[in-house]
Amino acid sequence: MTQRKKQPAQTRQAILDAADADFSLHGYCATGIGGIVIRAELTKGALFHHFPDKRALAVAWVGERLGAGIDRDWIAPLEGAASLDALRDLCRLRCKELRADDATSALVAVAAETAAGDEPLAEALEAVFSAWRGGLAGFFERGKAAGWIYPAINPEAEAVMFVSAFAGFTVSVKTSRNPQARQLFLTAFEGYLETLRAQQG
Amino acid sequence: MTQRKKQPAQTRQAILDAADADFSLHGYCATGIGGIVIRAELTKGALFHHFPDKRALAVAWVGERLGAGIDRDWIAPLEGAASLDALRDLCRLRCKELRADDATSALVAVAAETAAGDEPLAEALEAVFSAWRGGLAGFFERGKAAGWIYPAINPEAEAVMFVSAFAGFTVSVKTSRNPQARQLFLTAFEGYLETLRAQQG
Repeated sequence: MTQRKKQPAQTRQAILDAADADFSLHGYCATGIGGIVIRAELTKGALFHHFPDKRALAVAWVGERLGAGIDRDWIAPLEGAASLDALRDLCRLRCKELRADDATSALVAVAAETAAGDEPLAEALEAVFSAWRGGLAGFFERGKAAGWIYPAINPEAEAVMFVSAFAGFTVSVKTSRNPQARQLFLTAFEGYLETLRAQQG
Repeated sequence: MTQRKKQPAQTRQAILDAADADFSLHGYCATGIGGIVIRAELTKGALFHHFPDKRALAVAWVGERLGAGIDRDWIAPLEGAASLDALRDLCRLRCKELRADDATSALVAVAAETAAGDEPLAEALEAVFSAWRGGLAGFFERGKAAGWIYPAINPEAEAVMFVSAFAGFTVSVKTSRNPQARQLFLTAFEGYLETLRAQQG
């Protein structure tokens, strides 16, 4: 603990690591500062030195950790992508690897739980959703310009639809006991993606 | 209170009314038995006579109130429907009328918050999701048989996709400050629905 005191940036990251585990697993309300402090092996004073309250900690977690997770899982992989197949393959991977406590699931869960009643959290969550949609809209835009996305689609609207569908899927996976649920979603979701493809010839 | 004591069914409904308001507005964790008791103007003893704990109350609320809400808003309107236009019109209405605390939003929010870690709640929530998907799958099935839905689609898979997209949309609406968000979603969602239509001629 003495060592950490000397390295405030490292302490801050240790707090965010602990917060990430608890918020991702249990959501916002069910996560307590006390549990985070124990998990991070710090004092409450050390935590409050970095974050004045739970909401401030959650806002930082959303912006830094969920933001980085969505960037890593959804935005960066599409940056150099130049075909609808690349997006389809990414969706298959994300669908297969989806866990109830990964960045995509946690983003949706904490937004569903808090965003209607908590303006600072809603703003932080919206920034991450907005970046996710922006990555997709940019991908569709590039595909329209390069001729591999159907020219009449509205990239912004399709990005809203895409993110809504995948966000809702993260919730279905939590309740469903059907082992086919992921495959059923993918069947229809890939069918939807195909309708965005530029017609050949 | 004396009068209610004599009418257990009425007391039970008063508890569910109060639970509905709190769970829909604040979610599962943030709702306390104490607040429900005050809202229902009852004693804790009266509540515990009907529901042994908060989880039992939430399970009843999901099954009875959210189940009835999804039936009223999504399943019953499609029972006599015999065209894709009927579903499109229903989606426009649901999209326009969507509130952060209505049955659809509350179903998604409580599932996102609790279903990964709470088996009895997950089971109750899944029963409602399953009924919602079943209503849609039956509608698509009938449309295939009658020739107004594209014959190659998988009704069960499209129902998973439909419910996921709308479920995710209820979350986006909570974070988004963009007044165009509902229209952007509808633009793409109606485009998706059109791809389920049987081709003419």
